[in-house]
Amino acid sequence: MDHRLQAILDRIQPLDAAAQEQARARQDMLTKPRGSMGRLEDLSIQLAGIFGQPLPTIRNKVVVTMAGDHGVVAEGVSAYPQEVTPQMVYNFLRGGAAINVLARHVGARVVVVDVGVAADLEPHPDLIIKKVAYGTENIARGPAMTQEQAVQALLAGVEVVEQLVDSGLDIVGTGDMGIANTTPSAAIARAMTGHSAADLAGRGTGVDDAGLSRKIAVIEQAVAVNRPDPQNALDVLAKVGGYEIAGIAGVILGAAAHHRPAVIDGFISTAAALIAVGLAPQVRPYLIAAHCSQEKGHRIMLEWMGLKPLLDLDMRVGEGTGAVLGLSLAEAACKILCEMATFGEAGVSDKE
Amino acid sequence: MDHRLQAILDRIQPLDAAAQEQARARQDMLTKPRGSMGRLEDLSIQLAGIFGQPLPTIRNKVVVTMAGDHGVVAEGVSAYPQEVTPQMVYNFLRGGAAINVLARHVGARVVVVDVGVAADLEPHPDLIIKKVAYGTENIARGPAMTQEQAVQALLAGVEVVEQLVDSGLDIVGTGDMGIANTTPSAAIARAMTGHSAADLAGRGTGVDDAGLSRKIAVIEQAVAVNRPDPQNALDVLAKVGGYEIAGIAGVILGAAAHHRPAVIDGFISTAAALIAVGLAPQVRPYLIAAHCSQEKGHRIMLEWMGLKPLLDLDMRVGEGTGAVLGLSLAEAACKILCEMATFGEAGVSDKE
Repeated sequence: MDHRLQAILDRIQPLDAAAQEQARARQDMLTKPRGSMGRLEDLSIQLAGIFGQPLPTIRNKVVVTMAGDHGVVAEGVSAYPQEVTPQMVYNFLRGGAAINVLARHVGARVVVVDVGVAADLEPHPDLIIKKVAYGTENIARGPAMTQEQAVQALLAGVEVVEQLVDSGLDIVGTGDMGIANTTPSAAIARAMTGHSAADLAGRGTGVDDAGLSRKIAVIEQAVAVNRPDPQNALDVLAKVGGYEIAGIAGVILGAAAHHRPAVIDGFISTAAALIAVGLAPQVRPYLIAAHCSQEKGHRIMLEWMGLKPLLDLDMRVGEGTGAVLGLSLAEAACKILCEMATFGEAGVSDKE
Repeated sequence: MDHRLQAILDRIQPLDAAAQEQARARQDMLTKPRGSMGRLEDLSIQLAGIFGQPLPTIRNKVVVTMAGDHGVVAEGVSAYPQEVTPQMVYNFLRGGAAINVLARHVGARVVVVDVGVAADLEPHPDLIIKKVAYGTENIARGPAMTQEQAVQALLAGVEVVEQLVDSGLDIVGTGDMGIANTTPSAAIARAMTGHSAADLAGRGTGVDDAGLSRKIAVIEQAVAVNRPDPQNALDVLAKVGGYEIAGIAGVILGAAAHHRPAVIDGFISTAAALIAVGLAPQVRPYLIAAHCSQEKGHRIMLEWMGLKPLLDLDMRVGEGTGAVLGLSLAEAACKILCEMATFGEAGVSDKE
């Protein structure tokens, strides 16, 4: 294991149990029936444990959208051509994509990172270039990348989140852009969970029945050809993953190493979370699953990690669109804990 | 039927199909896979139809929290004493309750209305007094109120929302406060849907097993004693309802009459929606179900109206706490429709 990566994994600590206990005690004193804020109460207690603060506050919210391309697009697994990856990156930078609209709505910043787009992107103040390669190799024929490249992409994600933490990040959401990236994501899930490609693969951006059959066959072929070792998440990532998926896994690990929660978006981000949890199981309590995607197999992946999504709105855009809605719910959960009056403060009679 | 109430019901028109069609066409041109924003796309199209605008915008968001007391509290159906109703109203006015925190989070205004609190409340600029009576009669022994009182409380809700529309309201959320009000709400559901009290009644603010059994018996007794006519929603409301429930039904009807969406909160607001739909089935498409409450029976009530909740966070606070989260999602849905770039505008290649 690369020593820089190992150092990050070693920094990830268990949640602060004392802060969680204090947060739980306060929730029971607030002017509402005990437990009646449901999952927002649980979330506030998780966040108290992550931050190590009985009264956690969230102000600085960022969604990191990682972009990369995929050699497997050559197998006809996507409804859109590869040129859409850089086109959508420019759309993000101009503020016209779904992620921009929702991020503005919840007051989050969008940071776009090129980890492996198969084109040279024009410089832009909101674009971070961490390009490891011009797209992955075709996983149906061989490994997506070398282990060194996988480590480089993971560390790119760590570096991005560490810079954001230095400038005041409280919570990070993950997002992705990469034509064909539901295929490597399903291949990661295939390798890590052992479920069949037929159970995991969905229509992505909208392939037809023939496209879906082809995609399922390609995923099974990728796993058969590469033989990724489910006990070795770095091996899985390098053999059947992607650069933006590696970058997202790095963001998750880097956030947890710095006591920051990572709000996981949909199918692709959850594949990245599988890799992160495979590398460091102690990262699990730092994860917040924002939503359940319409993409088949997402629920299987979430359940495999013991994560329950906050939202279920049949979304399947990616980009971080589910994650930003989750950022807003995490902020709301903290505000409930910190801003509500207690029974004593409000002069309200408690339960008889 | 009271002529003022009838005039409101007569004003409720079908949604604007042309605006919906234009909104749907635009959704298909936006830079995302078709349909990939899932329920937020459907919501944006519904809102276009309600407002009669292909590009609906939501700025002015208000949650109306209606307060009232219930004679049935004498049967021991609540975990909290009746004095908590006015105490919580003061908590709302001071900004310390869950509804205040979440309303601030999403940028909504909270309007509190006394429709039937069993105490005289001190005047406050944010409190509207529309008191019909000092709480209902005990529904286990006889009718909650007269039909005249039910109409008066319904019209109070209509008047509140009409004043808000005059000052620029775009969307209204409903909320409630009233110790013991899950009991009349379940009784309304019992009468309207025909499901048993055992299927509908939950623990409310947190009664124990004995309290729950008592509550179920009281609900069945209320229906047996009063014999509400399920074909006559005004009869159901007067016999087993509550003043805040009537007020919420009035808010829903008034909003729809003025082409405004009504975002329904939890168990109590949904009982009010059953009354509103019973009085005017054409109000149905104006409703947005914000969330599924932890309170048993809520899902049955929603399904009876063909409503699917946006959120399922195990909340059971009432006050409008689920509704304000729904207001924010409705606003987000409009922004997606209005603010996203089209494939043409962004120079992004469409599906092959």
